[in-house]
Amino acid sequence: MSCFIRRMAVSALALGLIAGPVLAQDAAAIRTAEQLRDKALSGSIAYPLVSELTTRFGPRLAGTASEQAAAAWGAETFRRLGFDNVKVETFPLAVWNRGINSVQIVGPFAQPLTAVALGGSSATPADGIEAEAVVFETYQSLLDAPEGSLTGKIAVVLQDTVQAQDGRGYGATSPIRGLGPTEAARRGAVGYVLRSLGTHDHRFAHAGATRVGEGTIPAFAISPPDADQLRRIAALDDTPVRLRLFSTASFTMDGRSQNVVGEIRGREKPDEVIVIGGHLDSWDLGTGAIDDGAGVAITAAALKLIEDLPRNPRRTIRVVWWGAEEVSQPPPAQGLAGARFYADSRRDEMANHVAISESDFGAERIYSLALPASAANSDLQKAAMRVLTPIGVLFDPAPATGGGPDTGPTVAMGVPAFRLNQDGSDYFDTHHTVDDVLDRIDPKAMDQNVAAWASFLWLLAESDVELRPTPGS
Amino acid sequence: MSCFIRRMAVSALALGLIAGPVLAQDAAAIRTAEQLRDKALSGSIAYPLVSELTTRFGPRLAGTASEQAAAAWGAETFRRLGFDNVKVETFPLAVWNRGINSVQIVGPFAQPLTAVALGGSSATPADGIEAEAVVFETYQSLLDAPEGSLTGKIAVVLQDTVQAQDGRGYGATSPIRGLGPTEAARRGAVGYVLRSLGTHDHRFAHAGATRVGEGTIPAFAISPPDADQLRRIAALDDTPVRLRLFSTASFTMDGRSQNVVGEIRGREKPDEVIVIGGHLDSWDLGTGAIDDGAGVAITAAALKLIEDLPRNPRRTIRVVWWGAEEVSQPPPAQGLAGARFYADSRRDEMANHVAISESDFGAERIYSLALPASAANSDLQKAAMRVLTPIGVLFDPAPATGGGPDTGPTVAMGVPAFRLNQDGSDYFDTHHTVDDVLDRIDPKAMDQNVAAWASFLWLLAESDVELRPTPGS
Repeated sequence: MSCFIRRMAVSALALGLIAGPVLAQDAAAIRTAEQLRDKALSGSIAYPLVSELTTRFGPRLAGTASEQAAAAWGAETFRRLGFDNVKVETFPLAVWNRGINSVQIVGPFAQPLTAVALGGSSATPADGIEAEAVVFETYQSLLDAPEGSLTGKIAVVLQDTVQAQDGRGYGATSPIRGLGPTEAARRGAVGYVLRSLGTHDHRFAHAGATRVGEGTIPAFAISPPDADQLRRIAALDDTPVRLRLFSTASFTMDGRSQNVVGEIRGREKPDEVIVIGGHLDSWDLGTGAIDDGAGVAITAAALKLIEDLPRNPRRTIRVVWWGAEEVSQPPPAQGLAGARFYADSRRDEMANHVAISESDFGAERIYSLALPASAANSDLQKAAMRVLTPIGVLFDPAPATGGGPDTGPTVAMGVPAFRLNQDGSDYFDTHHTVDDVLDRIDPKAMDQNVAAWASFLWLLAESDVELRPTPGS
Repeated sequence: MSCFIRRMAVSALALGLIAGPVLAQDAAAIRTAEQLRDKALSGSIAYPLVSELTTRFGPRLAGTASEQAAAAWGAETFRRLGFDNVKVETFPLAVWNRGINSVQIVGPFAQPLTAVALGGSSATPADGIEAEAVVFETYQSLLDAPEGSLTGKIAVVLQDTVQAQDGRGYGATSPIRGLGPTEAARRGAVGYVLRSLGTHDHRFAHAGATRVGEGTIPAFAISPPDADQLRRIAALDDTPVRLRLFSTASFTMDGRSQNVVGEIRGREKPDEVIVIGGHLDSWDLGTGAIDDGAGVAITAAALKLIEDLPRNPRRTIRVVWWGAEEVSQPPPAQGLAGARFYADSRRDEMANHVAISESDFGAERIYSLALPASAANSDLQKAAMRVLTPIGVLFDPAPATGGGPDTGPTVAMGVPAFRLNQDGSDYFDTHHTVDDVLDRIDPKAMDQNVAAWASFLWLLAESDVELRPTPGS
C-alpha cells in the first residue's frame, strides 16, 4: 500500500467520510472487519511465510519431493498457527520431469536461444529434431494453414501477449500454448515453438502446461527477445530458418501430490464452509514466489488474523493449499489435479460450501471485489465496500463467475465464487520464469491483500446473505 | 535523446544562447561539427548496425567462429561504408570454452541456483565438487580470513555492487571476481562463488573474466536473487550450507582472434591518427548488444557521417573493432588481447597517434566529455562544449586518464586519451548476462552518442591543440 492510500484510509476513518447508514446487525461485524484490516496493514505474517516457503523449498514442481516436503511443512505451519482439522490429502499424479531442453538456430546465423520445454510436452528423439521453421506472426495464421502444409516442419508462433491489469492478454494467448502443438501436429509439424506468454522484453522463457496425449509434438517456449531475434533473422535472409530442438522431458506415471487443508471452525454454523487458498506447487524454474507462494501466504495470513480474534467467525473458514495446479495430465486424467481431488472427494459436502475463492494472481495490490450476481446490492456488498474502499478496493460491477483456477472444479459443482482482484499488470512479466523469486514481492502490497481478505472473510462469515442463485432466478 | 533535450538543442541554437566569442579559425570547424551533430540526431546507422551485428552473429565469444565471422563482416561493412585501409589483423589467443556449469545447494533446502562459471575459470573434477560453504558478506572479510581457514571449503562472497552513473561500483567490486578465486585458494578453498557483479535483483548471472593460472580454483557467479536466497538459507538453519559445483570449462590453446581496422585518411596530416572504436567480441550468454555491439556501431556510424562530408578531416581518423577484450589468458599472456596486439604491432607509430578513445559502456546517452589535462581551457575544449552542450553533454573537470579498456595498452605507450562518458547507471543491470540483447538499446540514445562522437571527432581532427603533456609540465 502506498503512503497515500494509507493516509487516505486513516483520514477517511477519522473524519467518518465513508460513513453512511449501517444496519445494526452489521455494525459489530464491520468494526471487527476494520480492526482486521488495520491490523493486517500494520504488518501480517504473509511475507515471512512466503519467504520461508520459497527459501526452504525452492521450486515445487507438482509431484516432486520438494512439493511434498512443502506440504508437510504447510500442515505443520497450519497447526502452529492454531488452525483446526489440519490434514494432508494425497492423490495420484503423473509427474512431468523437464529433463534437458534446448532450442538452437542452425542457420542462417547459428545461435542458441533461451528456451524451455512446455509442461507436459514430450521428448524429442535422442538426437533431437532438426527442421525448417515456418514462422507465423499470429496464432490465427497457424489455424488458417491447411492440413499437411507443415509436414516435416517446425511451427513457430511469434504472437505477443498484451499487458492488462486483469490478465486478459494471457487469456487470449494461452491457447497458443495449450492447443498450439496439437494444431501444428494436425497440419503435419514435427515440432512447435512459441513466443513465451510474457509481457516483458527480457530474456526469460516462460514455462506453462500444454495438452498431453495423442497428436502432440515436442513443444517449447522461447523468450520474447529470442522471438524478436527469430523474426529479424527471417527478415534478413531469404534462406529458410532451420531450428534444432532437443528435450528429454518425460512422465513418471505413478507419482502423487497432495492438498493441505486447515480451518477455523464456525462458532454458530460450523458446517457452513467458506473456502479460500492458493496452490502450493510451482513451476520448476523459479521458486514460485508470485505463482503462487504469495497466494498461499496471503490466505493463511488472513486466516491467522481471524484465528487471533477473541471469538470464532459464525461460519467455518477453510484454507486449502492445493497441490498440482500447474499440470497437464495424460488422458483420461485432467489438469488442476489438486482442485479436482478436493471437489471430487467432497461431492456430498458441496451443499454446505458457502463460497470459494483463490489468491493466484501474484502479490500486487487488490483493486476490486467481485461478488456473485445474487449478492448485488446486498448488505454484504455494502459492508464490504465500507471496509475495503479506504484501502483502494473498488466494487467490480461484473459478477464473479469464477474464483481462480483451483476453484473451478468446486464452482462447477454449484458453489458460488467471489474474487478479490489483484493488479496483474506486471504478473506476466515474471510468472512461470526463473525470475519468479522472492525479490519480486513487495511486502506492503502483500499486507494490503491480507487486509482485504481478512476483513472480507469476516464479513462473509458473519453474514446471512445467500450467494447461490435463488431457484428460478 | 529525450524530446526535452532535442527541443533545448534546437531552441538554444536558434536563439544563439550558447553563442560566445569564437576564434575565426574554429568557426568553419564548429559549423561542420554542428551539422554532423544534427545529422546524427536525425537518425544514424548505429542502430541498424548493432541490430545486424547481433542478429547475424549472436554471441561472439573471443576466439570463436562467431567472432571471426563477425570480424569478416566488419571488414566488409567498413569497405561498404567507404573507409580506407580496411584490414583484419589476426593474433593468437587461448580460447576459453564455457562447457557446462552448475551450482546447487545440496542442503539444507536442496535447490538449483542460477549460475555461470567465470571466464577463464577451470573445470571441476568430472563428478563435481561438493563441500561446505563459508559465506562472507564482504570481500574484505574473505581477505581477513587467515591462511588455512578455508581448507576443503567453498568460499562464497555475497557483497553487492553499488549502482553509479560512472560505474565506480563495478570498479570497487571487480576484484571480487578477478582476484577472489586466487585469494580463496590461498586460504585453502576448493571452490569459489560470488554474487554476480550486477546492480539489479533479477535472475541473471553475470559472466566476466577471472585470473587464470597457478593457484586458482573453479569459480562461479550466482544471480543476485540467488545470493539473497543463500543468505536467507544460512540464516534459517544452523546446519552449514553444502554446495555442489560442476564445470567442464576448458581452454583451446592454439586459437586466434582479430581486430578490424579502417580509417578516413587525413587531408592535410594523414600521418596524425585519432583512434576510436569498440570491441567486437562479447560474452557467450547474450548477443553482446550493449557490451559492446553498441560501441562498435556508434563509432563506425560516427566515422560514416564524417566520410559523407565533402572533404576529409585534416587528420586521419581510424576506427578499430578490437577482438578478445573479454578474456583472461594463461600466463605469460595477458588480457585485452586485441588491444595489446594493436599497440604492440604499432610501437613505431605511437608518436603519430594524436589521441585514442573507446565506446564501451553501453548505449545510453553521453553526459560528459573528459579531455587530457593539457587540453584544459583550450580552443578545442571551448569549441567542443559549444557543440555538445545543446545535446546534454557537460565538460568533465576531471582530466581523462584513460579512454576505455581497449585504449589501455596504447595509452600506456604515451598516447593521450579522451572520453565521452555515457550514463552507465543501468549498464550493470545487463552487461555480461543473457539479457544483453538488442531489446536493451534505445536507438535515440545511440544517435545522441553518434552526434557527440562525430562532432567532437571533427573538431579534434581539425584542431592543432597538443594533447600530450608539454615536456617538464
